[in-house]
This record gives sequence, structure tokens and C-alpha cells, in this order.
Amino acid sequence: MSLRVGVIGVGAMGADHINTISTAVPAARVSEVYDFDVDRAYAVAQPVSAGVAGSAEALIDSSAVDAVIICSPDHTHADLAKACIAAGKPVLCEKPLAVTAEDSLSVVDAELAAGRQLVQLGFMRRYDPGYREMRDALRNGDIGEARMVHCVHRNASSHTSSTSEGIVTGSMVHELDIVRWLLDDEIATIRVESPVAEGLRDPQLATIQMRSGVLVSVEVFVNAAYGYDVRCELVGTSGTVSLVPPNPSSIRKAGIDGVRVRDDFIGRFSDAYRLELSAWAEDALNGVVHGPSAWDGYVANVVAASGVASLATGGRQNVPLDPRPNLYS
Amino acid sequence: MSLRVGVIGVGAMGADHINTISTAVPAARVSEVYDFDVDRAYAVAQPVSAGVAGSAEALIDSSAVDAVIICSPDHTHADLAKACIAAGKPVLCEKPLAVTAEDSLSVVDAELAAGRQLVQLGFMRRYDPGYREMRDALRNGDIGEARMVHCVHRNASSHTSSTSEGIVTGSMVHELDIVRWLLDDEIATIRVESPVAEGLRDPQLATIQMRSGVLVSVEVFVNAAYGYDVRCELVGTSGTVSLVPPNPSSIRKAGIDGVRVRDDFIGRFSDAYRLELSAWAEDALNGVVHGPSAWDGYVANVVAASGVASLATGGRQNVPLDPRPNLYS
Amino acid sequence: MSLRVGVIGVGAMGADHINTISTAVPAARVSEVYDFDVDRAYAVAQPVSAGVAGSAEALIDSSAVDAVIICSPDHTHADLAKACIAAGKPVLCEKPLAVTAEDSLSVVDAELAAGRQLVQLGFMRRYDPGYREMRDALRNGDIGEARMVHCVHRNASSHTSSTSEGIVTGSMVHELDIVRWLLDDEIATIRVESPVAEGLRDPQLATIQMRSGVLVSVEVFVNAAYGYDVRCELVGTSGTVSLVPPNPSSIRKAGIDGVRVRDDFIGRFSDAYRLELSAWAEDALNGVVHGPSAWDGYVANVVAASGVASLATGGRQNVPLDPRPNLYS
Amino acid sequence: MSLRVGVIGVGAMGADHINTISTAVPAARVSEVYDFDVDRAYAVAQPVSAGVAGSAEALIDSSAVDAVIICSPDHTHADLAKACIAAGKPVLCEKPLAVTAEDSLSVVDAELAAGRQLVQLGFMRRYDPGYREMRDALRNGDIGEARMVHCVHRNASSHTSSTSEGIVTGSMVHELDIVRWLLDDEIATIRVESPVAEGLRDPQLATIQMRSGVLVSVEVFVNAAYGYDVRCELVGTSGTVSLVPPNPSSIRKAGIDGVRVRDDFIGRFSDAYRLELSAWAEDALNGVVHGPSAWDGYVANVVAASGVASLATGGRQNVPLDPRPNLYS
Repeated sequence: MSLRVGVIGVGAMGADHINTISTAVPAARVSEVYDFDVDRAYAVAQPVSAGVAGSAEALIDSSAVDAVIICSPDHTHADLAKACIAAGKPVLCEKPLAVTAEDSLSVVDAELAAGRQLVQLGFMRRYDPGYREMRDALRNGDIGEARMVHCVHRNASSHTSSTSEGIVTGSMVHELDIVRWLLDDEIATIRVESPVAEGLRDPQLATIQMRSGVLVSVEVFVNAAYGYDVRCELVGTSGTVSLVPPNPSSIRKAGIDGVRVRDDFIGRFSDAYRLELSAWAEDALNGVVHGPSAWDGYVANVVAASGVASLATGGRQNVPLDPRPNLYS
Repeated sequence: MSLRVGVIGVGAMGADHINTISTAVPAARVSEVYDFDVDRAYAVAQPVSAGVAGSAEALIDSSAVDAVIICSPDHTHADLAKACIAAGKPVLCEKPLAVTAEDSLSVVDAELAAGRQLVQLGFMRRYDPGYREMRDALRNGDIGEARMVHCVHRNASSHTSSTSEGIVTGSMVHELDIVRWLLDDEIATIRVESPVAEGLRDPQLATIQMRSGVLVSVEVFVNAAYGYDVRCELVGTSGTVSLVPPNPSSIRKAGIDGVRVRDDFIGRFSDAYRLELSAWAEDALNGVVHGPSAWDGYVANVVAASGVASLATGGRQNVPLDPRPNLYS
Repeated sequence: MSLRVGVIGVGAMGADHINTISTAVPAARVSEVYDFDVDRAYAVAQPVSAGVAGSAEALIDSSAVDAVIICSPDHTHADLAKACIAAGKPVLCEKPLAVTAEDSLSVVDAELAAGRQLVQLGFMRRYDPGYREMRDALRNGDIGEARMVHCVHRNASSHTSSTSEGIVTGSMVHELDIVRWLLDDEIATIRVESPVAEGLRDPQLATIQMRSGVLVSVEVFVNAAYGYDVRCELVGTSGTVSLVPPNPSSIRKAGIDGVRVRDDFIGRFSDAYRLELSAWAEDALNGVVHGPSAWDGYVANVVAASGVASLATGGRQNVPLDPRPNLYS
Repeated sequence: MSLRVGVIGVGAMGADHINTISTAVPAARVSEVYDFDVDRAYAVAQPVSAGVAGSAEALIDSSAVDAVIICSPDHTHADLAKACIAAGKPVLCEKPLAVTAEDSLSVVDAELAAGRQLVQLGFMRRYDPGYREMRDALRNGDIGEARMVHCVHRNASSHTSSTSEGIVTGSMVHELDIVRWLLDDEIATIRVESPVAEGLRDPQLATIQMRSGVLVSVEVFVNAAYGYDVRCELVGTSGTVSLVPPNPSSIRKAGIDGVRVRDDFIGRFSDAYRLELSAWAEDALNGVVHGPSAWDGYVANVVAASGVASLATGGRQNVPLDPRPNLYS
């Protein structure tokens, strides 16, 4: 039995998920879609023989839908996630879980009230083979105990609508989640600075201290010009392990010997998306959540908010997390 | 509708294909399996809810089987492929198509008699993203016109049963196919030499001339000790393009900064196997063969036989190919 | 005419300089040496036919000495440098110029009084071909305007006598100088933190803001176990340029494909030392100082002291530099 | 005492040697130069305070010259080398030693008659740190016993005057020497082929068998367009070791992450030239020859002639070497 998935929002991300499921995830199939743009919904649904729902709510309640993927605009995420919980259906929600920590907490509370986890956040990097190898290297003792992490996140260019805060909440948040997962540790303090004092404050440098003491540096540069590039080095007491961007070929031409850096975050993490969807479908069929949880979504909000506050003040911010409920331990 | 696949032979390769199909190829599902070892057949069939056929022939003729994958011992391939052709069913046959060129030609003749292609050979490297990028680089004019190719194929160690001829027919044959495909060209002559004059003649160095004149060097070393490693550089008149082995992480430890080289050819080409099975299933559903053909299987036999002859004599061997039938053009 | 050089202190560093001069720097020759350990002085002097002075002061005043290299213990540097200035002789002084900024300033004052520069500090990295290419890339506009720099400095292990402050003043100080030189900019603020709260605070993470706003991250880890490793990436608005450690060969062995990382800072920077000595000798013959100056030595003290203060308090420290005298502009 | 060196021929190579000696080789100094182009001779001599000889013969006989470097046109090498032997002066002769094997043998005979070695051939790669590490890796047992070597030699473009034979005698000859030295072995047979049948036969692929059986592949491509690039991998029974081109920095820009490949063979081997001249000067002062000998020059002629013959016929050629005289063992 494959999981019958309803997809809410079929923009670039939603359409890519549908394509991945239909070509590479036998454990699931897309049974229904919904989008505010009805024409687009039909255009995406037809090739995969999916139905088109009249509303997001109708999709969630549909008897043809076992589980839901939320790819609609950010401000709709929390309510839709709670509707899924109310319907007792597993849901994969693209980040953020909610626009504010308070709203994320309402989703957490809904799960607590339901007495079980249903929500997985779309932090797909946790499924990237490179980050997996890094985490395994640490857990296996290959590099000793963790002491530092250095992260770099670069885009070729940002949308003109980008804001300094949006760089923290939209881009840096991926780094904030991955270091928690790599280290199995919580962020205690964060400081975010920029060499650019006015206008779009890009790039940004975050310095983070984990509760264990481990220090993390994070560069986010959304107008780095040369391409989409994500780097990470985990420094241990007996060695270090680093992410290697996937490049199946190299070229020597015109005085350069190198590899291509593409401006394509979906392409960079295509393996991660495929493995995420595959694992999520299996977990949903088994009634469990092993991926990033609603709690991780809440933490992301809190840490990002602390980062935004730091960016404004230049000072170090504590990360005021609620105690973690047992459901998420 | 997914393709209902019957798998003949469920050793390491067959079991891996079944696993790949069930976890990553929605276009297909394994409906029946057969193996000489009945216990093994049941053990593999049960987790994917597949039936167990009483014989390879019964599987081929089964009404629950739309298409067949042949992973049984080499000497059975040709007859099984012909049985699939007789049954009008698409078949993915692991290499070799047959033990001799003559037997491969009998499969080609069966397709010619049937008036259509049904057989795809398991030269999975043609689906590897690295080789794909290399071929695209040539086709796109990124490196000018091809002049040379340098191939390296290394295993950590060979089975004790390995023979000097088996290195050509079992390992080098992958290189022989891939250069034909990369260059869209045919091998004209081959010479195979070894630094080792007696016993197992390993490593071997093949020097090949394509009909276009392009020269190819191929090292095959099945006891290279350090791991499984496949390299390829395609040299053009304005640049070169090279294969980069997949390594999602690197490690600095104990005085070395490097990447791992594993002794695992299935792992090295896991993407290729997945993409091969996915494309084959789509093609089978559409009644076409776009992958390596029975003709490619025949050519592999002829070229490998020329290589074996050269290894014995030390001289250059012409590759005496029959004219290519129109069905394969 | 080659420069007749007197070398004060013939421990590891002094002996290496003598060897480099005698084998690779025709512009200079070692004419006299002095060391507190007289036997060692003779052992080093004889192979290069140098005299042995009875005291550091005698060496400085010797008519057989045109210029001086100071490799004696740190606390002797300032007085010896001032003696060289008094004698009107060019001097290459290993870092630090003095143990305190105040003492460094006394050397600066001596130069100001003399009305000319005679002192060059031993920040040899400014002569390293990699850092040179990085600086040129920035100056040539290859990477746009500078926005960030990421530095990493790792030793395999530290002496048992290492102190937390000594990591800043002895190791990090190289990074503090090189970023000033790479960027042609001055450090405005520095913050130094460590994941290790007690005992030897190693590794350390410095976050630095230059006067232009450029942000710099610096990891120093003197017990990184795997080897001596120095990294640097300069991030610009249109690209980045990075240091590549020198490795003339790579090895594939025992499941790893990589390059060696040796525990040898003199070997890592052997080209830099050679080019430093060669340029210094030419400059000394011409009566000029183009390398790092006494002022750079003073700045290094001040910035390092700010770093040490920050390490104690955890807070950001301003770098209280005196105005730069015209002599050094 | 430094070696007083006379340089015959001050074109690009001669001028570079003079520059290297005067800036980086204290063991030598250039005391006299000669060139057919008298103006050029003066222009080069003056900055290093060298005299200008009236003829090559006068330079060799000059009482101000202890040793000679020959950088004049190829056809003059053998006679000049013999004049140096007659004068009892050490000589570093750029390759080739002579235009024919017969003429090289006349130089060898002159040394045999003199009863001592005086000639070193300018095969500078033997001093390259990368090749040194490769040879050491083999000698130290790091990669087991040698089985194969793969060499690549590429120039961006060739002079319009290049000939197919000249590619063998002028470029491939470097590879032919280096594999003999890396392996401490002699070439038994050589075969040279090209994908290009007419006009300039470029690139060329040589397949070589050493007396020990080790097989060597050599690609030479003097119009490879993208830059000057020399590669080498030595394959042993327990691992492989490869040359890494020197690149002190890498750049990420415009969609590429890579290192530069320059069109500059002198720059690529600048360390090798420096170390060659330094070692030669020391050896000359000590009256010994440790570098490539006149015999190596003779062998280069014979092997290259066999390569040229093979290129014409397409067949494998034996390398008909005379027995090695004891003087060179």
C-alpha cells in the first residue's frame, strides 16, 4: 500500500515534490492537490492522475488523502498543520512551521493534545548524504569530540524583496537546524553581525554557542554572485569532517581546472529531497515521525528571532526556549 | 499503471535491483521472482509481496509479469532473453548478453525476426550522472572534438577464481561499452597487455583505436588493494572533462586530508542503478528501448574476444563486427 | 655585494634561517652568529664559515655585520632591535617585536627618532605565494570588494607549557597580521571565545571587524591532532579566493584518496621563509623596508592584547591603536 | 667559494637560469655569458656583473669560468659538451645532449676517455618536489611494487614549426626520462600512435614497456588549448601516488570552483629549475655528477628515435641500447 498524499501549494517546491514522488518514491503517490491558482493545480495534477481539491481544508479532509504536504505560503502553514493534526493525518510541512514562535507553539500544543506526533518539518538537509556522513563520523568517534562547526551558505543572488531579517529567517534557519542535528545539541546563544551596516545587511556572520559549549560560525551570503554553495566543516578533537558539494564531473578548460557551481538549491539537494520524501512516506505509513519535528520548527523560530534581535543590536542573544515536552525527547 | 517485473536470479545483483525498485522506482514493482535456490527466492519475495515462480520459463510466461530482469548466471542469459522475446516481453539483462558473440547474435536475430527491440543490457554506467555530464560536455561542444579517452577501473581485490581472460570479459567490458557510448563511435582495434607475464595477468592496459581515430587507454587492475575506483578523462581539442567519484564528505585525520575510497561497486554506482531501472521501466511501459541494446551486448562480446586474443598474442586485434542492422541504428 | 648577516639566537628558527640563506639567498651570507649556548653557536657557525660573537651586542656592533636577524627569546627582541637601530643596521626580528605594546612602541619611537625604518618583523606569511595570490586577486578585482575572511590555524599539538593567552599572542597573531595585510585595512574590534571554559582554552574562535566593516572569523586550534593546517578564504562580492596548502603529490592507499598534512610549520612555509629572507636582504642592501614594519609589530601587540582581554571577559574589545606615524604610511 | 658559471646561449632558458642563479643559488654565480646575439649577451650580463665572452669556446676556456651551462641551439650541444670535457669543466647541458644517439655517444665516449663524469643533462623534472615524493613513495614501500605509470603532458599550443617527430624528441622525451628515473628501470619497447593520421600528429599516445615489465602510458598533446599541464600517476600493488600541480590558491567565480592552469612551463617547474641548479652547483664544486648523466642523454636519444620510428610504422619498437658503461652505474 502506498501512501496517498495530498499536496497543498504547487509552486516550484510543491511541483518538485510531486515530480519526485511520482518518479522516485514508490511508498507514496500524489492523490490530490490544491492551489489558490486553480489552473496551475490542474496543470500539475493531470500528469500524475491526481484529483484537484476545492480548498486546502477539503484536501486535508478528503478520504482520498492519507497524508499531506504543505508548500503554500508561510503564513498559512500553522493553521494547515493544525487542521492536519485535527484530521489525524501525517503532514510534511515546508519550513517555517509558523511565522512566529508563538504560532509554532500552538502546533506543538495541538500535537501534545493529540498525544502523538504527526508533523514533520521540511528541513531536508538532515537527509543529505553529506551531512549524514558528517553526523556519522562524529557519532562513530572518527573525529573525537566536537569543538567547532563552520557553516557557509551562499546564493548567487537574492530576490529584490529580500530583507535583512529574511536572510536570518529564510536562509540561516537551515544552518541553525542542521547544527542542532549534527551535534545533537541545543543552541544557547546567537550573535549575528554584518559587514554591511545599511540597506540589505548581506552577508551576515553568526557566531553561536551550543549548550555543550561548542562554537559555531555561520556565514550567509545571499548575493555571493558565483553560485549556490553550501559548506560545512565539523571540527573534532582528533580530526575534522567536511561537506563536499556533489559534482560528478570536473572540467579543464580556458585556463581553469575545476567543478561547476550551479545556482540551483533544488538541484544541490535533490538527493536530500528524494530521501526525505521516501523516509517520510515510510514513517507516515508506520505512524511515526523520525524527521525534524514540530518542536524543531518551534526552536527554529525562537533561534531565528534571537538572531534577528542580535542583528539589530549587535549583541549576543540568549535563546529562550521552553522546556522540551516529553513527546519530543 | 506500474510495470510488473519478474526477476530471474536473486543473488547480490538481483536482490539489489529488487530493493531499488521497491524503494525508488514507482514506475515498476516486483511481481514475481525465481531463483534456483528456492529458499532464497522466498526470502527475497516476501518483503515485497512478490510471487515465487517455479521456473525461469514459468516466470517469463506468467500473466503477472509484464517485463523481466535477468540476473541469473551468465550462461543462462541468451536463452532466457530469447524466451522473453518469444513472449513479447521487455527484458533488462545483466551483462553479458551471452557468453559468446555467436550466442549474442542469436538474440539479435530473434529481435530482428520479431521486428522490434525488447532487450536492454545492464550497462548501468550509461546512466551514471558523471558519465552523463561527460557525454553532454562533448555533445555541447564544451571541450571541442574528442581526441583521447583515459579510463581506469580498479577493484580492491579479485575473487580467487578470477582469470586473465575474465578480467577482460567481466571488468574491462564496462569500459569498452562506455567509451563507445561516450564517443558515439565504434571500436576498430584493441590491444591488451599486462606487466605481469605469468599467472593472473593483472593489471592490464588496453589501447584502443576508435573508427574515428580517437585513441583510448584503459587500465584495469582488479587487485589494486586500496579500493574500488573508476576514473575517466575525455580529452578534447579545447578542454577535457573527467569523472569525479561521488564523495559527499571529506575527512582530515591522522595526517591525511582526503576522501574515502570504498570497496563497493554497487555503492559507487547506486545512482546509476536507480536511474537505469527507472528509465528502463518507463521505456518498457512505452514499448521502446533507449538503453544499451542487444546489439551493444553482441559488440561487447566481439570486442572482449578481440581483447582476450590480444592478451594472448600481444598484438593489435581488429574488431570484426557484423554490419549493424537497421533496427539498432 | 652580498649582505653580511649576523644571526642572534640559533635555535630551530635561527638555524633554519641560516640554512635558507646559505642555500637559497645569494643576496646575503651569514657572517656572524651569537647564541647563549656557545657550543651550539659554534656548531651552527662552522659549516657556513661564520664567526661567533661573544655577545648579542658585540654582534650588532661588529664591522663584519651589515644587518641582523633576531631569533633569540621573545623578551630580548625589543632591546636588541633598538640596539640595531642605534647601530644604524637593518634588522629582521622574529615576532613578537616586544612582549608588550609599550615596549614595541619604544622601538617605533627609536625609528622615529632615527628618522628612518630599519626593522622588519618576521611575519613571513606575507611572502607566501598563496597569500600573495589571494591579495592580488582582491587588488585585481577578480573577486569584487571584500566582505569577509575566514581563517583557520591548526597545530597537531601544543607544548605542555602553552597557555590560553599564549594561543592568542603566539599563534593567532599570525592571522591578525595577515588579514590586515590581505585587506590593507585595520582591525577595529576583536572578540575571542572558546568552547572550552576551563584549563587550556583551545580551540579559540575570534570574530573581528575591520575599520571598513569587513568581518573576519578566525579559528585557532593548537591541539587539532591531525596536523599543521592553515586555511584562509577571502569572500568578495563577485567571488572568493582560498589558500591551497602545498602538496606536490597525492596518494591513494588503504581506502583513502588524499594528501598528507604534516606537523611542520617550517616546512609548510618554507617558500615563504625563503622569499622573505631574499626580499629582506635585497631591501636591506637598498636601505628600505617593504616588509612588515615595527609599526605592524606594535599593532600585533595591541590587537593580541585586546584578544586576550576579550578571551577573559567574553566581550567585544575595541583595538586602541595610536595614530600611525607618517613614517609608516 | 661559489662556482663561477659561464652560460652559453641566453635566450629564454638561459636568461631564466641566470636569473635563478643570481636570486636563489648562493653556491654559484654567473661570471661570463656568450650568445650569438651580442647585444642580447650584454643586456643579460650587465645586471649580474658577468663578463661577455667572444665565443662559446673562449667562454669554456676562460679562467673566470669553473663550470658551464649550455642553452644554445640543439645542434651545438654535443660539440660544446665535448669541449667542456676537454677543458675538464663540469657542464649542465639543456636537453638534448645531441641531435642523434650517435653524437650523444661521442660525448659519452669523451667522458669514458676522460675517466670521469662532467656532464649533467637538463632533465629538471628529476628535481621537482612532486616527482621526488612519488619516487620516495615507491622506494619507501608506500605503494607496494610498481605495475603501471600514466603520464600526461599538455601544452596550450605549439609553435607553428612543430613537427610530429619534434613532439616525440622535444616534449615526450621529458616523460621518457622521468619514468626511467621514477622506476629506476630501463625502457624495453615503445609504441607511439596518434588519433590524427595526417599533418601534425598531435596528440600522441605512447605505450611503453620497461625491462621489469611495468607498463607506461604517455599522452602528449601540444595543442591542448586549456594550458600547460603535466600529470603522472604511479600505480603500485598496494596504492598509487600522483603528481599534484602547484596551485597556492583556488578561486570560486562565475559558476566555477577551481584552480588556474597557466600556459607556462618555466613557471610550472620553477622549483625544479631552482633545485636543479642548486644541486648541480654543489655537485660541481664537489667534482661529482649526481643528476641525469650523458648516458641518460644518450638513452633519451635512442628511446626517442624508437618512438619516432614507431610513430611512422605504428608498430612496437625495441629500444636498442648499448650496454651501460661502468662509469654510469
